[in-house]
Amino acid sequence: MPSEQLDVELEFGENGLIPAVAQDAETGNVLMLAYVSADALAKTRNTGLAHYYSRSRDELWKKGGSSGHVQRVEEIRVDCDGDALLYRIEQEGGACHTGYHSCFYRTLGGETVGEEVFDPDDVYE
Amino acid sequence: MPSEQLDVELEFGENGLIPAVAQDAETGNVLMLAYVSADALAKTRNTGLAHYYSRSRDELWKKGGSSGHVQRVEEIRVDCDGDALLYRIEQEGGACHTGYHSCFYRTLGGETVGEEVFDPDDVYE
Repeated sequence: MPSEQLDVELEFGENGLIPAVAQDAETGNVLMLAYVSADALAKTRNTGLAHYYSRSRDELWKKGGSSGHVQRVEEIRVDCDGDALLYRIEQEGGACHTGYHSCFYRTLGGETVGEEVFDPDDVYE
Repeated sequence: MPSEQLDVELEFGENGLIPAVAQDAETGNVLMLAYVSADALAKTRNTGLAHYYSRSRDELWKKGGSSGHVQRVEEIRVDCDGDALLYRIEQEGGACHTGYHSCFYRTLGGETVGEEVFDPDDVYE
């Protein structure tokens, strides 16, 4: 339950952010890595929908706010050091703005291994 | 293949590091999040064993160097922005120094959900 009491101390970085890995709770696929501020984490826990903090836009954002591809958070886990989070989620549509289910759709060698699940031209104006 | 040619451009952060998520390639479990320097990534690709860069100790380290709990890297993926890596690995023993298979063994509420796979007292002197 995302809104359960927070009993684990978190170590936010100097920039006030902590990395969060989003994982499909059913398939185990790792979908994306993004950053979370204390406010973004609170919003995530209060709404049950994943919120992050954009370092480039310098603002809190709701995943799927423009695309509709929201992430329903089933559970939030924290690592041993308290400096990383794992969002176990149910992904609406695809996690990646490129149209892939996961942002990790390529190998380092450039081979495409991910599944394309939507056409970005249909989703973003 | 970890040592295949690198055809994707990577965005290392200002500190010269890029976050890497280690995922059990067979079960899909997310085991840990750590940071990688260019040297650590090169060592990972050349040896097939996961190497990271410790921000607290300020040094490159081989996962399992003292515990024997190495990570054999089957594939390295990169995300859409090129600023995060996914190590798909086979984990010897447990990934977490606490004895759990995954560092993400707790929920934010403090509930233990991970599996304990070794006794740290037996592994670390």
